[in-house]
Amino acid sequence: MKYPVFFISDSTAITTETVGLSLLAQFPGLEFNKYTLPFIDTPLKAQQTYELINQKSEQYGQKALIFSSMVQPELCQIIRQADALVLDLFEHYLTELEQFFHQTSTHAIGLARKPMAEESYNQRIAAVDFSMLSDDGTNLKHYKKADVILVGVSRSGKTPTCLYLALQYGIRAANYPLVAEDFLDTSLPHALKDYQDKLIGLTIDPGRLHAIRKERRSTRAYADPALCRQEVRYANQLFQRYNIPSLDTTHRSIEELSARIIALKGFKQNND
Amino acid sequence: MKYPVFFISDSTAITTETVGLSLLAQFPGLEFNKYTLPFIDTPLKAQQTYELINQKSEQYGQKALIFSSMVQPELCQIIRQADALVLDLFEHYLTELEQFFHQTSTHAIGLARKPMAEESYNQRIAAVDFSMLSDDGTNLKHYKKADVILVGVSRSGKTPTCLYLALQYGIRAANYPLVAEDFLDTSLPHALKDYQDKLIGLTIDPGRLHAIRKERRSTRAYADPALCRQEVRYANQLFQRYNIPSLDTTHRSIEELSARIIALKGFKQNND
Repeated sequence: MKYPVFFISDSTAITTETVGLSLLAQFPGLEFNKYTLPFIDTPLKAQQTYELINQKSEQYGQKALIFSSMVQPELCQIIRQADALVLDLFEHYLTELEQFFHQTSTHAIGLARKPMAEESYNQRIAAVDFSMLSDDGTNLKHYKKADVILVGVSRSGKTPTCLYLALQYGIRAANYPLVAEDFLDTSLPHALKDYQDKLIGLTIDPGRLHAIRKERRSTRAYADPALCRQEVRYANQLFQRYNIPSLDTTHRSIEELSARIIALKGFKQNND
Repeated sequence: MKYPVFFISDSTAITTETVGLSLLAQFPGLEFNKYTLPFIDTPLKAQQTYELINQKSEQYGQKALIFSSMVQPELCQIIRQADALVLDLFEHYLTELEQFFHQTSTHAIGLARKPMAEESYNQRIAAVDFSMLSDDGTNLKHYKKADVILVGVSRSGKTPTCLYLALQYGIRAANYPLVAEDFLDTSLPHALKDYQDKLIGLTIDPGRLHAIRKERRSTRAYADPALCRQEVRYANQLFQRYNIPSLDTTHRSIEELSARIIALKGFKQNND
């Protein structure tokens, strides 16, 4: 038995889908078939969506579940006539907020991202450029402009985390891959010496590292379990010796790692 | 007059913040000071948060506004005692969902991202690797593995959009920068000939392009307004001649571009 679930929005549907998935995750025993429908911004599209919902509802023999964020009430009304439970983000919370602020909201489409000023948008793009240019230990001279430098062995999760920090938060994140020659002595790699306060270590379970490397490349030495154990041990020793705060990436998503890095470094994303 | 606004979660607070910002965007006349507090997952942290809220509320002379997503009711209870309007994502919608499914939810922390199976998580990481390797027209031989190839002049938004598609959706997005030599004749660049069905053009207002390029590099020729106009005109002609669907990036966020690309290509993110 599966429930048809729809994420519907007159904008990108990214927020709607994120919220919906969070909530559905609280019901791990149930199964869902999910349909994401962004840019439902005309009566015609709303009507087609209404028909699709009813069709799937019948096909599955299950009332559909709809997460929506439609700022135009007349479009929401069309969707609402479907045979489904509709949870609309705007309806419930906007009403509460309107009461709190003693004013009506604009009900304007596409405002979702507007609190992010153009300035901060440009900052995100510049941060992405920065992360691309200083990925994987290249362009060490850029380190002085970095907000944070992630340090870890190959395939410990540095690159995607840097890119997420840049794209989502406009943080200039560089990364430095620890390689065999860094482990020849016990001191901090030369390139990092001037930037100790920017460093965050990423560590990982050696078994998981082995699995990732094996999938990634065919050379046996790279994925060798003994090498993985040794590299991780050296890395952890380095972090400890130089008081580099570190995060275990084994069971953490990019999103969680990024949020923890921000918390660790105390980046002011917001105003005061 | 500013309202202190808190985004509080026992997990990353990313969802909470996204939803809260969408809702606040509907009140463009008001001003907010925002505080994001992730990982509030112990009674002690909840207590400290409660005190911070009251302190800010007093400092601003304004009742605080709280967007929260706390799956542990006892922590939510502590926050709730603050002098504030609390909009909790879980409270309202989980109650509705529990009724709909005729079962209680797990109220377990960190489930937010779990609907994303490890398999799809690995797919996202692989897609990021792919986008990094095939950025900016490098590694053209990878094009056959690409889900989509973004085509556009320099600084039209290709790279951040590719990375967002990879990070957020696990889509293998390559990009091909149109340069002067591509405009020497009117045919499709050789590297793209075999992949017409994967192409999406990015276009941009020449004035905006000039502004971006000027900020980015100091060489005058690169940002020359006449060159910007010419390149964009050539690019648009190419898109038209070869029926390449195109998106104007001038006033669109990376998020919106990505959602529109997915809609255009009809990628099945979901099941059926």
